[in-house]
Order: sequence, then C-alpha cells, then structure tokens
Amino acid sequence: MRMRKKPWAKEMIASRTDCVVEQPESLRGRWNEYSQNGEVRVEIGSGKGDYWISMAHLYPECAWIAIEKSVDCAAIALKKSLDNTLDNMKLIINDAANIEQWFAENEIDVIHLNFSDPWPKKSHTKRRLTYGTFLEQYRRILKEDGKLIMKTDNASLFEFSLLSFEENGWKLAEVSVDWRRNEHPEDAITEYERNFMELAQPIYRAVWRP
Amino acid sequence: MRMRKKPWAKEMIASRTDCVVEQPESLRGRWNEYSQNGEVRVEIGSGKGDYWISMAHLYPECAWIAIEKSVDCAAIALKKSLDNTLDNMKLIINDAANIEQWFAENEIDVIHLNFSDPWPKKSHTKRRLTYGTFLEQYRRILKEDGKLIMKTDNASLFEFSLLSFEENGWKLAEVSVDWRRNEHPEDAITEYERNFMELAQPIYRAVWRP
Repeated sequence: MRMRKKPWAKEMIASRTDCVVEQPESLRGRWNEYSQNGEVRVEIGSGKGDYWISMAHLYPECAWIAIEKSVDCAAIALKKSLDNTLDNMKLIINDAANIEQWFAENEIDVIHLNFSDPWPKKSHTKRRLTYGTFLEQYRRILKEDGKLIMKTDNASLFEFSLLSFEENGWKLAEVSVDWRRNEHPEDAITEYERNFMELAQPIYRAVWRP
Repeated sequence: MRMRKKPWAKEMIASRTDCVVEQPESLRGRWNEYSQNGEVRVEIGSGKGDYWISMAHLYPECAWIAIEKSVDCAAIALKKSLDNTLDNMKLIINDAANIEQWFAENEIDVIHLNFSDPWPKKSHTKRRLTYGTFLEQYRRILKEDGKLIMKTDNASLFEFSLLSFEENGWKLAEVSVDWRRNEHPEDAITEYERNFMELAQPIYRAVWRP
C-alpha cells in the first residue's frame, strides 16, 4: 500500500533533532551511549513506528534505534512519538542497505524485522530483508550472542526466511507459526498486527542466532 | 481419539500374508526387492493407510513400507487396501522404536511422517516421532542423500520439530506453513488432511536432509 504524501513531513523531521539522527555514521560504535544496560536494539523497517515506540517504553533501559527509509512513514512515527519520546529512542531515515556504515562490528544485541515488505516477485528476491546479502551484514554488526527476531503475516516470506537463514548458517533458536495463540505481554502488538489477529490470521515469528 | 476395538482385526491381519510382514528383520537390507527403481519409502505411523495406499499407487515403481503399531488401525488399512494392494506395498504392525532392527544402514530413500501424534504434554516429549533419539535412528537408516518429509496440522509439534531437527544437525530443505495454499498433485491428500483443509486450517510441511 503506497502512502499518501505528507506535506508536513519535512518540517516534522527537521524539528525533531532530539530523536532523528541525521548522521548515523558519527555514532558508529557509540550507540550504547543511549542505553542504560548496554543493550542496543535495532528495528529495520519501522514503518509508522508503533513497535519502536511501544517497545522503547516497555524496555526503557535499552537503546532503541529505528530505521525507516520512507520519509512519510518516518514522519508519521515522529508525529506519534511527539509527546512520548524517550532518550533511548533514535530514528534513522535512510536505506538499511547502508547499515554497516552506521553500526560497528559486534555493536547490536537484537535486530527486529517486523512485517517487512515480502517482495513477492522472484525478480525482487534480493530486496527481501532476509536475503543472504543482508544476513551477512547483520552477522557482522550483531554481537556474538546477539539475535535477530522476525515477525510477519506473510507465509511466503516466512518460508523463504527459514531457508535463507539455514543456508547462511544461522541457528534457529525459536519458532512459532501462530505467535498470538499464546499471550506474549513482553512483545508489543502493533495496530497492523492486531488487524491480522482480528481476522484470525496467524502471525509467524522466529528467532535466529548468527 | 481412541478407536473402537475391531473384533475382526486379528483375522484380517492373519489373512493378509501378501502384504503384512510378520518378521521384518528378515528383510533387513533387502527391501529394495519390492522396488522397481531401487527407491524405498517408509511411512512411520500410517494410521488407517490412506496415504500409504494412495502414494503406492501414485508411485508404483517405489517400495512403500507402512509402519503402524495400532492393530486396529492396521486392520482398517488392510481392509481399505483389500482390492488394491500392489506388490510394492508392505505393512509392518509394530512399534517404530524398533525400526533399526528392520532396516539396514543407508537403506531408505524417504521417511514420511504424516499427522503424527503430537504428544502435547511436556512429560511425553520423548515419545514424539521427531524427538532426538528418533532422529538418530532415522539418520542411520536413511541413505546419505535421503530425506524425511513431515506433514502435520499441529502447530506445536511442527515448531518442536523445526527446532529438534536443527539441534540434531539436519538440514531444512523445504518448508511450508500452509502446504495446501498451492496445488500439490504429487502428494496424496488423506481424508484426515482434507478435514483440516475444509476447515481452512493450515497444513504444515517440511523436508529435511540428514
């Protein structure tokens, strides 16, 4: 679903220097400055920011870095967080393909992929955020005991990802083909996710270690 | 669901010497005698035999060995196959825990697990047919390029199995969280499976290599 252009987006972004990191490469290796317990969590493709905002409040002791390439999505996330931005919340508005420029080796504890674009066409396989080239980057910036947590409503993307992580030597640590059949108060439910739950559609989730 | 006792079961089994293998250990290393192309396929827990019968007819060039420990279930399978038993169809009525007594190392091409008992209680974990001790046995009797194909309607068993195969060093080769969303004419649909499809419940399927 393409989003309608937000005329106020640029202004919103420019005004939020408390939270938007314009030059993330300048913080490379130092993101734990925003963490009280040293833990750095990164959500790639944070969309409208629901998960980022909820989780940063649920775990205020960790640094929560959101990455979103859509200016309009990022602006909505900033609007939503206007009155409730914590010091541990940072937002990078840029393409995650550059992630190694912003994070040092062994810097990240957890990478979150939530409802990523499934890029269903075969010719777009390489754009999926769980394609091998991405996994190589994730491995380098994750800590040795770090992990990647993925949630999706898309069966094909989930299946592709299970095989892709396997082929790239990651270790499957947890897996659920219906994550919301049990209660998980430790994991925020976004509006997008709730829509699927109300339609009784399963949420797939897995955790891998590099 | 416990099955009502079949008073005719013993007689049916005794009469079916064409198909029931009373001393499977005597065929150890020689099952390919029932195969035209050398391929030996084994279904562990064949229940009422629908899959075994359908697949043996779909692939008559392979040997199809069914294993079922319930005498009553096995009797039903024999009744169903009464007029359509091929030479490639054999049935072992016994507990699969003894499988290594019946099959030699590197003898089997494909092991099928279809809708196995989920044994949901934690204290029964070791009884699940994808528990580590079973996987060790399967690895020994499977050919090096053999594979295990699992189908189930049970999300918990599927999740458990994905982790169990991973922990035991098997390689995930295929995975589907909704096998019947696409057509698969190569794979027989049992009555049991069709019930779930009609309820729009997903069938989970995966293929692993040892």
